Amino acid sequence: MPKLESPQDVLLAINYTGVCGSDVHFYRHGGIGASSIQAPLVMGHESAGTVVQVGSKVTSLVPGDRVAIEPGFPCRHCEACLSGKYNLCEKMVFAASPPFHGTLTGFFVAAHDFCYKLPDHVTLPEGALAEPLAIAIHAVRQAEITPGTSVIVFGAGPVGLLCASVARAYGATTVVSVDIVPAKLEVAKVFASTHVALPESKDPLQNAKNILRAGELGSSGADAVIDASGVEISIQTALHAVRRGGTFVQVGMGKSTVDFPIMAMCMKEVTAKGSFRYGSGDFKLAMDLISTGKVKVRDLITGTVPFRAAEEAIRKVSGGSAIKILIAGPNEPVN
Amino acid sequence: MPKLESPQDVLLAINYTGVCGSDVHFYRHGGIGASSIQAPLVMGHESAGTVVQVGSKVTSLVPGDRVAIEPGFPCRHCEACLSGKYNLCEKMVFAASPPFHGTLTGFFVAAHDFCYKLPDHVTLPEGALAEPLAIAIHAVRQAEITPGTSVIVFGAGPVGLLCASVARAYGATTVVSVDIVPAKLEVAKVFASTHVALPESKDPLQNAKNILRAGELGSSGADAVIDASGVEISIQTALHAVRRGGTFVQVGMGKSTVDFPIMAMCMKEVTAKGSFRYGSGDFKLAMDLISTGKVKVRDLITGTVPFRAAEEAIRKVSGGSAIKILIAGPNEPVN
Amino acid sequence: MPKLESPQDVLLAINYTGVCGSDVHFYRHGGIGASSIQAPLVMGHESAGTVVQVGSKVTSLVPGDRVAIEPGFPCRHCEACLSGKYNLCEKMVFAASPPFHGTLTGFFVAAHDFCYKLPDHVTLPEGALAEPLAIAIHAVRQAEITPGTSVIVFGAGPVGLLCASVARAYGATTVVSVDIVPAKLEVAKVFASTHVALPESKDPLQNAKNILRAGELGSSGADAVIDASGVEISIQTALHAVRRGGTFVQVGMGKSTVDFPIMAMCMKEVTAKGSFRYGSGDFKLAMDLISTGKVKVRDLITGTVPFRAAEEAIRKVSGGSAIKILIAGPNEPVN
Amino acid sequence: MPKLESPQDVLLAINYTGVCGSDVHFYRHGGIGASSIQAPLVMGHESAGTVVQVGSKVTSLVPGDRVAIEPGFPCRHCEACLSGKYNLCEKMVFAASPPFHGTLTGFFVAAHDFCYKLPDHVTLPEGALAEPLAIAIHAVRQAEITPGTSVIVFGAGPVGLLCASVARAYGATTVVSVDIVPAKLEVAKVFASTHVALPESKDPLQNAKNILRAGELGSSGADAVIDASGVEISIQTALHAVRRGGTFVQVGMGKSTVDFPIMAMCMKEVTAKGSFRYGSGDFKLAMDLISTGKVKVRDLITGTVPFRAAEEAIRKVSGGSAIKILIAGPNEPVN
Repeated sequence: MPKLESPQDVLLAINYTGVCGSDVHFYRHGGIGASSIQAPLVMGHESAGTVVQVGSKVTSLVPGDRVAIEPGFPCRHCEACLSGKYNLCEKMVFAASPPFHGTLTGFFVAAHDFCYKLPDHVTLPEGALAEPLAIAIHAVRQAEITPGTSVIVFGAGPVGLLCASVARAYGATTVVSVDIVPAKLEVAKVFASTHVALPESKDPLQNAKNILRAGELGSSGADAVIDASGVEISIQTALHAVRRGGTFVQVGMGKSTVDFPIMAMCMKEVTAKGSFRYGSGDFKLAMDLISTGKVKVRDLITGTVPFRAAEEAIRKVSGGSAIKILIAGPNEPVN
Repeated sequence: MPKLESPQDVLLAINYTGVCGSDVHFYRHGGIGASSIQAPLVMGHESAGTVVQVGSKVTSLVPGDRVAIEPGFPCRHCEACLSGKYNLCEKMVFAASPPFHGTLTGFFVAAHDFCYKLPDHVTLPEGALAEPLAIAIHAVRQAEITPGTSVIVFGAGPVGLLCASVARAYGATTVVSVDIVPAKLEVAKVFASTHVALPESKDPLQNAKNILRAGELGSSGADAVIDASGVEISIQTALHAVRRGGTFVQVGMGKSTVDFPIMAMCMKEVTAKGSFRYGSGDFKLAMDLISTGKVKVRDLITGTVPFRAAEEAIRKVSGGSAIKILIAGPNEPVN
Repeated sequence: MPKLESPQDVLLAINYTGVCGSDVHFYRHGGIGASSIQAPLVMGHESAGTVVQVGSKVTSLVPGDRVAIEPGFPCRHCEACLSGKYNLCEKMVFAASPPFHGTLTGFFVAAHDFCYKLPDHVTLPEGALAEPLAIAIHAVRQAEITPGTSVIVFGAGPVGLLCASVARAYGATTVVSVDIVPAKLEVAKVFASTHVALPESKDPLQNAKNILRAGELGSSGADAVIDASGVEISIQTALHAVRRGGTFVQVGMGKSTVDFPIMAMCMKEVTAKGSFRYGSGDFKLAMDLISTGKVKVRDLITGTVPFRAAEEAIRKVSGGSAIKILIAGPNEPVN
Repeated sequence: MPKLESPQDVLLAINYTGVCGSDVHFYRHGGIGASSIQAPLVMGHESAGTVVQVGSKVTSLVPGDRVAIEPGFPCRHCEACLSGKYNLCEKMVFAASPPFHGTLTGFFVAAHDFCYKLPDHVTLPEGALAEPLAIAIHAVRQAEITPGTSVIVFGAGPVGLLCASVARAYGATTVVSVDIVPAKLEVAKVFASTHVALPESKDPLQNAKNILRAGELGSSGADAVIDASGVEISIQTALHAVRRGGTFVQVGMGKSTVDFPIMAMCMKEVTAKGSFRYGSGDFKLAMDLISTGKVKVRDLITGTVPFRAAEEAIRKVSGGSAIKILIAGPNEPVN
């Protein structure tokens, strides 16, 4: 069992862990982009667990508390950390990001302020969904969505669906989900989106027109566009579908470089932003949105498999028919 | 002589007009991008002139006043205009942008609030430089530069040089100008930049390293990068040279699409922005920076030719050895 | 019948007008603060009407369109207007603000872009409520409320109630309405607030504690506090009830000066803002919130009186038992 | 000699310490506002020193390094800290703020990232001035000053003078210093201000007019006003001297409550902010402004007394004729 490294740490028994597309990618290819696995690596970073032990300076948690885990711990001393942008910390210790082990294990040590106590009416499986929800929250915050605005979200996987739902929570009046898999659009329609669009053209400009028409958005474009697909033509379409002065956010991972409509960005004065993991306040808001039911994360849980069948979970996710598979355990919840 | 269209308009006699790269492009190719010339078009949009007549509701100007001209008139009724983003107005009437005639003419009608009175100690040729300076101001504002920050500017033509100088006025401690023409870097060094860099590699990552070294900026990257070149490899290099959480601004015009390091933008959470023309407050600040001598626009004037030799001016600019050529006239300044 | 002054204007037949506390004040005292009535003045600024005639440049409206009216027309030429802060225009022509006549009349000329077409399912009485709703939207925007935040609103009159509802639309999780009239708090509870508080102390610090307790907000304070009461002790309490780094917005009118806890503002780094009328985008959002039912303005309409009984309406409002009284007419709606 | 509490700490020998008005106040009255001294307390928080020992995880400093000290250490775990607002941390350990001892002592333990290495050409006395400079930087940042703007600063003591100089570094074109002591205005004129004003009226509105006239600012008001005096009439005047939509910052300490023109704030939509100590990036910028000579802190040093004469220093400051008195020692600088 791991030991607390700091009096600010807590020891957690892991109860549920979601399988992320990046887990699948690591499992199959041994790496993502510049990040490759050099030694056996514990995977998992979407977990909920139960507090087993608390450090001597921890007053906010006690053993037995059920928590959602923010699985990356910044250095707290660099400029990024001190300025409230800790997700950009160069010394970040992030679960399942080599060389750091992940949360899909029996016990895990976490900073106490990165553990979020679940209210009684929130379940541990819902708690495990706080992580992808925080990803979506961070992206939507980057998109500067306010009541009355219109948003297009490319991709209707877990992050895209959650972005759509969070955009609604931020007051967006129109949320158009775009995907090439009709079944995912069916889910999107029920889950959060006001409109959906199935792109049928290979021409980004034509795609943009079709999507704006499907979203009843007129010709001026959407206030914000979020790409949760990482696909080149989505990104190209996004820049043509966003209005003058609008915002584009890249949250999905994909190719290192894409053919990008830079003059559209320039002449429409689009603000394009990356969204990387999550930062200050994102998990706190995730807990609020789950707790108040504004984002119904439980509706995204397609199935749960026991810990010993973890590889099956990864296969299910890579098959594409599931939205979010949870791995139960290795520890049984105590209450 | 043109007539006032509104009681808010003024009639101006044009005294000096700068030649812009876009004028050269129109002159040679009959268009830029989607904008092409269908009928004879008066060129020119960098002008200073003298007030000849004022509309019945104009109280801020009187005949004889010397003014710098902001040469694009928005509709004042659309959402962009009412929200202070008038440069994004879809009904903008912009000088020398087809089908609207430019300022390189005897007399020109302008909205009174888009004419900026020159203080006595500012010359009309300096006034003509207010327009490219406003372009640079808008770009630097987009870049969110504050005292103590570091900035890299790609391109050391008029706009790039002015961006460097405006960045200094905004308090940037380090301003690195990058160009492939050594002579332009010599000008940059004298004009405003604290450092210069001549890129020698075809690899954007290597370029970025070299530029950061030349700018004594360490490995984390610059706070902001402005591309005033429009060149693909500059844009690629920019995304690798900007720090995590930094800002990239595209102000230079170039190819419609470029191979763009989108994952660098995503994972470093770079904010990338377009900068299009100029908007609220930009010309006002241009007048302040000229008037206080914080930006020495006169140092960029390579030469002045008479109106009848306007084509010569365009040839000089396209030859590349000059920075900014002014066309004097067609009207003589009266005082 | 008034004539169009500009080709951008429209002529409106007035159908419904709400009575505002300021109308009552003008009616009784002949002025408010520095603004006093020197000659007979048409009152009214919360109106909905029907387009009768459109200027030659108007394409967005046709006769017969039912509209909500934004009743203040800025100059469109000053720095405030060009920078998107037109509510701060020094040349504003605002309805029923001396010397400008109001909307409580048969026909009224308005700038076309300050008229907001009602969707078919929105009634004219609801349209008349767009104006106080825009007041509340502007205040809530100033308060920088986002999902998950907590807000205290002092005052449960029409503006305070609407602020509470708009704060919910902006995602506030906790909205505490504070008033000294228990009946108003009953309305607040049903209309939008998650909590209510009846202040019972004359000590602002004690008041703040009680309100935070009533709102289940802990001791650190609320993220934002909006004063829609204008009452001194509310303002004092607000500064003690807001958290470190939180925001205080003054939207209610009251005494020119109050005894203000300036050191609380200083040491907690509170941002205190005024909110004056409404500006860019506020009416557009008001239409969206009414149209989507996110703010149920019709629930605030206590009664409607015919035009000939306008004085009765003013008496009802000043009696205090009503929330919002509408004056129907003088024109009958045509459809 | 104190011991390192954390491997991230460093042990410093104190070389120079500035005397602050708050030291004088504590010395004479045993407290300030809610903060009172219960036991003997080491004073001092404006210090520069030399690194004697570094913790095992410190790589940025080595013994012998000369540093300016940011003398308040936040908890790094609360919401304020994680969001980049560490100056609002409720668990802040701040030098000479009871019950925490100050820096006017032989040796002091500091977090390594709160120590700023002095470049070779910056002296230790200049380093001691980094603290009041950071106070001014924080206030000017709150005031949102950009090139071309106008600023009024009430108070021409050390913080007011530094605010004026920092405002210039942020590009303010007009900086008006206001004080009731003519000799201080003479210093202001030489140090940084473009204009000065000696208020002669007891009427805030008249004061405001006079100051705007002295600053050649027209009748619309200044873009920003900073109160570094804490005096009631200054605050009142400030609200009348700031333009519509402008910003007011309270940095000076004074009475808990003042008679405040709340309706001026409301109807002009002034943003009023507190400024409390300093936060993310403030000391870093202080080092840059000292190092580049943009703020000439050495010009504010009126005199230096040896450590054994510390009480004399405090008397000199309270006498009012000095700007900034440094206490040398107790340790001799080693290089």
